[in-house]
Formats: sequence, structure tokens, C-alpha cells
Amino acid sequence: MRRAVEAALLGPENDPNPRVGCVLADGDRVIAVGHHRGAGTPHAEADALAQAGERARGTTAYITLEPCHHTGRTGPCTLALRDAGVRRVVYAVADPNPAATGGGAWLAAEGLAVGSGLLADEAAEVTATWRHRVRTGRPWVVWKFAATLDGRSAAADGTSRWITGPQARRDVHAERARCGAVIVGTGTVLADDARLTVRDEDDRPLGRQPLRVVVGEREIPFGASVLDDTAETLHLRTHDPHEVLTALAGRGVHRVWLEGGPTLAAAFLRAGCVDEVIAWIAPALLGAGRPAVADLGITTMADTLRLDVRDVALVGGDVRVTARPLPRAAAADPARTGATRSESRTTDRATAYLTAQSVPDSGGS
Amino acid sequence: MRRAVEAALLGPENDPNPRVGCVLADGDRVIAVGHHRGAGTPHAEADALAQAGERARGTTAYITLEPCHHTGRTGPCTLALRDAGVRRVVYAVADPNPAATGGGAWLAAEGLAVGSGLLADEAAEVTATWRHRVRTGRPWVVWKFAATLDGRSAAADGTSRWITGPQARRDVHAERARCGAVIVGTGTVLADDARLTVRDEDDRPLGRQPLRVVVGEREIPFGASVLDDTAETLHLRTHDPHEVLTALAGRGVHRVWLEGGPTLAAAFLRAGCVDEVIAWIAPALLGAGRPAVADLGITTMADTLRLDVRDVALVGGDVRVTARPLPRAAAADPARTGATRSESRTTDRATAYLTAQSVPDSGGS
Repeated sequence: MRRAVEAALLGPENDPNPRVGCVLADGDRVIAVGHHRGAGTPHAEADALAQAGERARGTTAYITLEPCHHTGRTGPCTLALRDAGVRRVVYAVADPNPAATGGGAWLAAEGLAVGSGLLADEAAEVTATWRHRVRTGRPWVVWKFAATLDGRSAAADGTSRWITGPQARRDVHAERARCGAVIVGTGTVLADDARLTVRDEDDRPLGRQPLRVVVGEREIPFGASVLDDTAETLHLRTHDPHEVLTALAGRGVHRVWLEGGPTLAAAFLRAGCVDEVIAWIAPALLGAGRPAVADLGITTMADTLRLDVRDVALVGGDVRVTARPLPRAAAADPARTGATRSESRTTDRATAYLTAQSVPDSGGS
Repeated sequence: MRRAVEAALLGPENDPNPRVGCVLADGDRVIAVGHHRGAGTPHAEADALAQAGERARGTTAYITLEPCHHTGRTGPCTLALRDAGVRRVVYAVADPNPAATGGGAWLAAEGLAVGSGLLADEAAEVTATWRHRVRTGRPWVVWKFAATLDGRSAAADGTSRWITGPQARRDVHAERARCGAVIVGTGTVLADDARLTVRDEDDRPLGRQPLRVVVGEREIPFGASVLDDTAETLHLRTHDPHEVLTALAGRGVHRVWLEGGPTLAAAFLRAGCVDEVIAWIAPALLGAGRPAVADLGITTMADTLRLDVRDVALVGGDVRVTARPLPRAAAADPARTGATRSESRTTDRATAYLTAQSVPDSGGS
């Protein structure tokens, strides 16, 4: 299963489909190692079965995610495994997609030996944001900001280059590359003419680019860098984070990079639509200038939006803090004890989404 | 010398005098270990010589700081060492005090073998802030603040309890205890009725308390906690950081804890009178409320006050960042290349101070 997890990681992280690995083994002997290479390509199981050919017969399939039992762009992997004569199937994590689940049970009913849960934590991590989208109907949102130690994202005159050092900026590109979409407001496009692409150390764009999403009602001017042909760009004329995220989920995006100014960040935070915050804090003081986040409607200390620090690192001369919003105090609504506002809200929306639309590209493998 | 450094660390850190250790040894055999216990008590050399008595004759004295050669509250240690028959003196760090220096040279002229520089870095660290005061004429200033990830030190309604968690607050007390004085503005006294004392985990005041310094022209109200008898309190009716620091240097304070609100912090930062910043950053967002620091007169990114991160730590759930201001860009005045504004300014003031007044309690040992 460890080989299967390693194989899964070879797939593209910001693909609409989950990253999945599959190892066919005969006892200790590995017959084939397959992985999914992105939407429209064979599932990991199909990849491994094609390599193994006749040698698949009688083997055990170790798969990081429960094999799909529905027909998407490709046929169900369950049938393919059975037809190839695989005798035993061990998967790490169950398929959270109501349209694709049930593969394990079907295989067992067909007389194969079926096990699950092996290396579940490691395998779950590989598909965490993809499963989040399937479960909640919206992508996992990472809000990125760069600010000084006193919380300023730009000086009084609007200048913001460069708050952080070159190493932190490279780090931002690496994190951005892990996402299926980058969101900014029209304000950021107008003020900075941001390119929003993922670039290498020589400032050249990488081959695979996240979708660029500009949110807001103002027009994007002709000639704006965000309209060049380096990557696809989507202009959503809305300020509602839920609308934005539903649209992106519908395009198979499961990890979103929220990069736009303090107003957009505040809208997402207020809507409970931020799942992770990565702050690059420059050891610098401005004393005035644009804050990292606009008004959150919080007036007293007891209502502050608390986060849980997951990681602190020194990147070049800057401090990177990775944190996740904590459940709000249950005081306001005792019935919600233990659940975050965002969780309850997005679960409702997720239900609405999953019943209203067919889920694209969400095969279990 | 390592034993001498360890002995030095036994002395009180926020004393007007430096912490010094002295070991008398005969070859590998340690005859006596002495250290300085605070202003008005015997110097480390005297402590060790008293323990050794006649056995001091022919020994080597390892001392963390060059022995003093002037008469303060006690006589010169140089004479005491010679008179006791010590044959060899090795000190780690030279005495920076113009009134007390020259001890090493005098001993050599008297025929003793004299060496210096052994474990100099470790020994220098023990007296770093004391030497800073002697050299510059003003104490080493540590600006402490607690803020959210978006740089807010209080919510919109003024509430600030508690931004950080209990472990961070204990950590603040530990750092405050290392200082000879705690500075706040009258605003903090009026708003928070702060006690400004160092307290243990059960909120009981410790025996040794920093001087409490309230800066500003407003009256401290009768019954204010800062006027209780737990510690001494000084009210300085000025807003000039240089005046405040000169007054504290005159009282033997070499490490100052600057704790007061954004306006006072801005005044010290603008005057170049902050040597270290310790920020306890709570992983929380407020979106509005009092900033950590008020206007610094900085309007554009290029002029931001840059710091150098010395340490990052997770304290409880909060992030502690320790940093020191970097020299300002020399562009404004090419003659100052390589020197900070604060350095050049305070050096001038230090000279004025050292010639105008006698230096109290600044013996070299």
C-alpha cells in the first residue's frame, strides 16, 4: 500500500480527479504499479491492469481509494478488476462520492476478498481537498496573505512590493501551483495588473497553470496581464463567496488559492469559506497602510476569529504561519456545539449542490 | 572560564551592576568560585578572594569581565587581586566603561600574567545589555506587543483581554522579569489599570520587581494599581524617549521593557530607541480595532522599518517572534553607511551623558 500511496503522489494535485495509486501484487512480488495521470486519462486501476495484462489474474490489488463503481469518462474499475481475475482488493480510503461509492461492497458480493483502512491516514492526505469538495460541494479554500508584523499589506501610498523576501515569494508560487484556481478581486487586477500565474525561479510560467478567477463587477481592462494566454481566466460578476465556490466546484476545482485584497478576504472569512490561512509575515513595521483584512463585523475581543496554528517556519527572513479557523464559540447557538459555522453552512449547500447537479469527473479512482 | 560564566549567571540580571563570575584556580584545581550578587555587594573577585583567603596566593583568576580599576562603592579589584598574590589573570571581555577600564593593563604593569578573550562570546552575552548602556548611555530597549495575525492589539470596542493564551502571558512575565524597568504610557494606566509587576503562576508578585515607569503628562489617578507598594513607580512627565531613557540609565537600568500602547511604541520607534522587538502573535483575526503601532511617518514600502528575525517559537498556541531593527537604508545620508540612525544618535547622546555626569555603579567587575 505504501507503494500505492507513492504512486498516487505522482498524479497532478490540482486536477479535477483525485490522485490515486494502485499496486497489483502476487504475495510479496509486485506485478504492476499504476497511477492516475489526470482527468480524461485511465484510472490508476486501469493503468496497473494494462501493464499487468494476463499476469493480473490471481493478484491482490492495493488501491489508495475505493475503486469506482460508476461510469464516468471511463468504465467502472470494479468490473475491470473482476474481469481481469484479481482475487483480492485492499483499499485505504472509502469513496466519499455518493454517485461512485459502493465499489467495495459490489466486489465482495462478486466473491472477491475485500479489505480497507490500510494506511488510511497517509492515503487520505493525498486526496484531502478532493474529498472535501465531494463531501461539502465546495473547494478547500486557502487564504494567502503577506503582511508586516503590524498587519499591513501595503504602505499608505498603496505600494506593496516587496513586503516579503524572494524566498517567501518562491514559496508562494509553490503553494499556488498546488491549487486548481487562484481567486482575486477586480481591485487587485486593476491596482497590480497581477499575472496570477505559477512561475519558476526565472519568472517563466510553468506548463500546468491554475485557473485564474477574477471576482467582482468591474470590467477587466483590455490588455490586462490576467487576460494573456498563459492560463485560462474566469471573470465571475458576483461578490458572494458561495456562488464563486459553487462555480469552481462545478469545474472540478478542489483546492482554491484566495489571494485578493482585504475586502475579498473579509467576504470569504465572514461567509465561513476559509479553510486554511497561510500568512507570510515580514519582520517589518509600517505603522500605517492597508490592513491584511477588512472589517469582519467583529467588535469585541471575545468574538475574535480564532485559528489553530498547524505550522510555523522561517522562510528566508520571513515567518510563515499556517493555521486553520477553529470552530466559533458555541455560546451564540448552543445547538451548534462542536461544529463550525462554516461546516454547518457548507454542508447544507453541499447537499443542495449534489442533488441539483451531476458531479463531473468524480470517479472513485 | 566556563565555571566563571556559570557563576556570573547566578547574579541578578536586572541589577544596575553587571553580572560577573570569578574562579580562582591552581592548575586544574578550583580554589574558589565567586560571583557578584548585585549593587552594594562585593564584586565577584572580592567574593572569590574572601573564600580563598591565603589559598589565593599563586593562583590564576578567571574572570568574565576585565577587573575594575576604579573606586566605586568598593575598592578596585585590580589592587585586591595583586595584594592577594594572584599570579595570573585571564578575563573574557574588556570593560567598556571609560571610568573603570585599564585594569588589565595595570595588572600587567604590576608584573602579573594577563590574558583575555577566553570564551568571550559567552561572557559577552551575560553582560550584553549592561555594556550597551555603558557604551551608548541608554538602556537596551525591548518593545513587547501582543497582536492578532492581522496586527490588532485590541478590538474595536477597546477590549484586549486576552489576545494571547495563558502560556504566552506567562512567557511575557518571564521576559519582563529580566528587565530593570517597565515603561507604559499614562493611557495604558488609565485604560487597563495595569499592575506592571512580575507575578508567578498563581498571580503573586515575585520578590524582585522592575521599576515601573509611567510616561506622559496626564495624572495617575489615586488608587491606580501602578501606585501600590509592590514595586517602585516613576512618573516621567515627558514624551521624549531620549529623556526617558537617559533618566533610566542614570538609575542603573540597562534593559527596559517597553509595553505601552501604539503611540508610545511609535514614539520610541521613530526616535530609533528600540533595540529588540518581541511580538506575541495570536493566530486570530479581528479585522478592525487598535493597531499594534501608531503612525511611524512611513508612507511608502521602500521606507518600511525592517527587522531581522532572531527567533521564532510556538508558545502555547501563539507565535513568538523576536527580531531586531536593521540599519536603515543609507540612501538618506551616505555618510552614515553601515550605521543605524539610532546608533549614531545614541552615541552622540552617550558621549554627552558620560562627560556630564559621573557614572553610578558601573564598576568593571
